[in-house]
Amino acid sequence: MSTPAYDTIAATYTRMHHLGHLGSIAGWDRAANMPPKGNEARAAALSELAALLHRLRTDPKLAEQIEHAEQEPLSEMQRANLREIRRDWRHANALPESLVQRRQIASSRCEHAWRKQRPANDWAGFVENFRPVLAVAREEAALLSEQTGLSKYDALMDRFEPGMTSATVDRVFGDVRQWLPGLIQRVRGRQARETVVAPVGPFPVDRQRALCEQVMRQLGFDFEGGRLDVSTHPFCGGVPEDVRMTTRFDPDGFLSSLMGTVHETGHGRYEQNLPRDWLGQPMAEARSMALHESQSLSFEMQLGGHPGFAKLLAPMLAQAFGDQPAFEPGNLHRLITRVKPGLIRVDADEVTYPAHVILRYEIERPLIEGDIEPDDIPALWDAKMQELLGLDTRGNFKDGPLQDVHWPEGLIGYFPCYSLGAMFAAQWFAAIRRAVPDLDQRIAAGNLAPVFDWLRENIWTQASRWTTDELALRASGEVLNPAHFKAHLQARYLG
Amino acid sequence: MSTPAYDTIAATYTRMHHLGHLGSIAGWDRAANMPPKGNEARAAALSELAALLHRLRTDPKLAEQIEHAEQEPLSEMQRANLREIRRDWRHANALPESLVQRRQIASSRCEHAWRKQRPANDWAGFVENFRPVLAVAREEAALLSEQTGLSKYDALMDRFEPGMTSATVDRVFGDVRQWLPGLIQRVRGRQARETVVAPVGPFPVDRQRALCEQVMRQLGFDFEGGRLDVSTHPFCGGVPEDVRMTTRFDPDGFLSSLMGTVHETGHGRYEQNLPRDWLGQPMAEARSMALHESQSLSFEMQLGGHPGFAKLLAPMLAQAFGDQPAFEPGNLHRLITRVKPGLIRVDADEVTYPAHVILRYEIERPLIEGDIEPDDIPALWDAKMQELLGLDTRGNFKDGPLQDVHWPEGLIGYFPCYSLGAMFAAQWFAAIRRAVPDLDQRIAAGNLAPVFDWLRENIWTQASRWTTDELALRASGEVLNPAHFKAHLQARYLG
Repeated sequence: MSTPAYDTIAATYTRMHHLGHLGSIAGWDRAANMPPKGNEARAAALSELAALLHRLRTDPKLAEQIEHAEQEPLSEMQRANLREIRRDWRHANALPESLVQRRQIASSRCEHAWRKQRPANDWAGFVENFRPVLAVAREEAALLSEQTGLSKYDALMDRFEPGMTSATVDRVFGDVRQWLPGLIQRVRGRQARETVVAPVGPFPVDRQRALCEQVMRQLGFDFEGGRLDVSTHPFCGGVPEDVRMTTRFDPDGFLSSLMGTVHETGHGRYEQNLPRDWLGQPMAEARSMALHESQSLSFEMQLGGHPGFAKLLAPMLAQAFGDQPAFEPGNLHRLITRVKPGLIRVDADEVTYPAHVILRYEIERPLIEGDIEPDDIPALWDAKMQELLGLDTRGNFKDGPLQDVHWPEGLIGYFPCYSLGAMFAAQWFAAIRRAVPDLDQRIAAGNLAPVFDWLRENIWTQASRWTTDELALRASGEVLNPAHFKAHLQARYLG
Repeated sequence: MSTPAYDTIAATYTRMHHLGHLGSIAGWDRAANMPPKGNEARAAALSELAALLHRLRTDPKLAEQIEHAEQEPLSEMQRANLREIRRDWRHANALPESLVQRRQIASSRCEHAWRKQRPANDWAGFVENFRPVLAVAREEAALLSEQTGLSKYDALMDRFEPGMTSATVDRVFGDVRQWLPGLIQRVRGRQARETVVAPVGPFPVDRQRALCEQVMRQLGFDFEGGRLDVSTHPFCGGVPEDVRMTTRFDPDGFLSSLMGTVHETGHGRYEQNLPRDWLGQPMAEARSMALHESQSLSFEMQLGGHPGFAKLLAPMLAQAFGDQPAFEPGNLHRLITRVKPGLIRVDADEVTYPAHVILRYEIERPLIEGDIEPDDIPALWDAKMQELLGLDTRGNFKDGPLQDVHWPEGLIGYFPCYSLGAMFAAQWFAAIRRAVPDLDQRIAAGNLAPVFDWLRENIWTQASRWTTDELALRASGEVLNPAHFKAHLQARYLG
C-alpha cells in the first residue's frame, strides 16, 4: 500500500531525531562536562538547533502532508504515530514566534537571577522577574486554551500530560488532601517508637560510584547503551540509544546519591526499552511525564522502599564500605522508609511528597487562571505548609516558593506529574501482584525479573502507542486509580 | 557602508559554526565517552548534520551572494574572510553529491575492515577495500585538478595545506632525503655513548592525569575553556570556546602520554587563542594543517625537547611519583630526546619522523597520479624503509603500510603537513631567538612566556587572515625555509 505523505512525514521526524540526538548529547555534556567559558557558545549552538527544529515543525508543507496522510491506508501503528505527530505539530504551531521568543527571554532572565535570589532569600527581587514570566505563561495558556477548548491550566498541563485535566487532578488530589495529614501523623507516631542506626561515614566517592553502578546493573541498566556521570542536578538525559544518567556524591552520606541513582535508573530503563524499530517517530517516545515518573518511582519507591531491596543492598554496602550496624537489612529498610515532614520537595519521602505537589498545584492553577497574583504566593504557601505538613515557612522564601526551578523557567502545569507518577507506580505494582501472587517473596529473594518483565511488556515497549488512559487500561485493567497509592502507603507504613 | 550580501554570508557562517559546535562535541564524546550501542545512532546523527551543512554550503544563493559581496566596500579583514569563504565554497561545491556519497561508503567500509585487518596483518584483504577508496580519490583529484589548474596530488593536498605544491614538497623533502640518513647515523653514534637511566614504574593513572593537567597549566592551557579526557587515539577536538583534548594512560610508562599531552596542548592553545570576535567566520579558523602541526610541535619538540623543559619537569615528576634517578634533569632530557629508528610513525622521535612522512609522500603521490597501483605499495614501502631508516619490513604489513588510518579513510595529501609543521616550528623558534636573544636562558629558568607571547601575536591570533606564505613572511621574515629544521636538529643532537 502506498503512503507517500506518511512516509515523507516519517522521514522528516527521523531527521529531527538525528539532529535532536546532537542536542541531547550537547545538553548532557553541558551539565556533566562543560567548562564555564564554553557556556555562551553552547547556548548559541543549542538555540540554533532549537530554531532549526522549530522551523522544520512549523513548515507549512508538514501541515499539508499530515492532512494527506490522514487519507492514506495506514497500519494501526502508523495511525497511532500520526496521532502523536498531530499532537507534536499542534504544540509547535500553537504559538506565534514572537511569543516563543518573549518566553525565552523572560524565563532565562528570571532563572538566571533566581540562582542568586534563592540563596539570598530575595522574594521581592524574584517577583519582579517572575511577573513577565507569568504574563507570558498566561498569554500562552489563553492561546492554547482557545485552540484546544481546554481550560487555561489544562492547556498548559496537556503539554506534559496529554489528556490529563484539572477536573481529574482536583478529584484525585482533593481525596489525598483528606487522608494525607492524618496518615503522616500515624506513620510518624509509629516510627517514633523505632530505633534507627545511622550509617557512619566517610563514604569515599570512588566506592560510592562503583556501588551505584553495581546497583544499576542489578536493576538491569544496560551499560553498553548508557553511562553514569556526575552533575550538580541529577537527571536522565541522552538518547534512547545512549542514555546518560547523572548523580552527585557526598562523601558524608551515600543514601541520597544511591536512591537518586535508583530513581534515574527507572527513567533510564524506560528510555533504553522504547521500541527500537520506531525510534525517531513520536509514537516511540515515552508516553508522558507522569508515566516517566511512574517508572523512576517504581524503581525508587516501589522497589527501593521494599524490605527485599534492603536485603539485596545490605551485602553490597558491606562490601563497598566495610560492614557496620546500620547496614543490617531491617535497619536499612527503616532508614530508606523514614518519614519526616520537611520544607524541601526534592528531599521529601514518598509519604509527605504529595503534600508538596498539591500545594504547588493549588497555587499555580489559580495563578494561571488569573485568580491570584505573585504577591499572594508566600501567604498561601505558608498556610498550605501549615495545613498539610504542620510546618512554618514565614519569611523563609528560599526553602519556600523559591526552592524549585520550575516557576522561574516558566514550567507551569508540570508539578502534578510527580504525584500522578507515584500513583501510577502503585497501580502498576498492584497489577504485578495480581499477575505474580508471590511477588513480594520473589523480591525478598532478590528476584526482580517479574517487575522488569511486566514493565517492559506493559509500559516501556508500548511507548506512545496508546493514549494514557488506554495504556493504563491495557496494563492494569483500569485508568488511573489513586486508591492503589493510598493502599500502598498504608500497607508499607502502617501494615 | 552597507554590505548586505557580505552580512548575509557571514550570518550563514555563524549559523554553521553553531551547528558545527554540536557536531564537534558529539564527535569528541564518541571518542571519549560513548558506549558501544550508541554508535549507530551517533553515526546517523553526525551524518545528518554533515548533510545539512553541505546543503547550506552548496545553496546556489550562497554563490550569488559571494559574487555580490565581492563588489561591496569591505574592510581588509572582511576581504580576507571572503577569500576564505570562497575557498570553503569551492571545496564544498567541487564534487558532485554522488561522488561524496561514494567516497563516504568506500572509506567507511575500508576503515571498518582495516580495524581488524591491521592486527591480522591482512594486506590482501585490505587491498580489496582500498582499491575503491583509491578509485574515488583519483576521481576526486581529477575533478579538483580540472577546476583549480593544480596537479592531481596538489589539488588533494590543497584541502589541508592551501597554497602548498608538490614542487615545493619535492624540493624540501628531496633535500631532507639527502642529509637525514647520515644525520641519524651520527646522532645514533653519539647517543650510543650516553648512559640513560630508565624510569621505574608503575605510574598510577590518577597521578599521571594530575601531572598532565599540571603540565598543561604550565603551558598556559585554559581549563576554564577546555578539558583533558581519555580516548584510544589522542586528539584535540571540541570548539575554540571549549577545547577537548584527549590522551591515554599506560601505568607502565608516563612519558608517551605526557609528551602526547604536551603535543595536543600546542593544538589546544592555537584553538583557544583564535580571534574571539571573528569565531564562526572562516577567517578565524586555523590557517592550515601544517600550521596547526607547527604549534603542537613547537610545544612537543621545540619546547618539550629543550633541556630547560626537562629541568621544569623534574620536580613535578618527583612530586607525582616519588623521586628516582631517572628524573634527574639531564637524564630526563636524554630520555626525551632519544633517537631510534622504528617501524611506527606515531612513535617516532623528531629526527627519524621525516623519514616516515617522506616515504608516505613518495608512495601516495604516484598512487594518485596513477603511476603505481596498491599492489606496488609493500615493495616500495620496504625499499624506502631500508633506504631511509635501515629497517626491514618485509611481510610485516601491520607495522608497515597498514599502520595509519589515513589511507583507509581516503585522507590522501595530508601526510606532508606533519613534516612541514616540524619545519615551520623550527622556523618560528629561530625567529623567536632573533627577537629574544636570551631565549634559551629564559626557557632554562622556566620562563616560557616569550614563546607563548610570540606565538599568540604572530600565529594564533592571525588565524587565516593571511595566506600561509604571507603569514610566515610577516611572522619570521621569510616563507617556509627548511634550513631552520636542519639547523635545529644539528644544534640539539650534534651541538
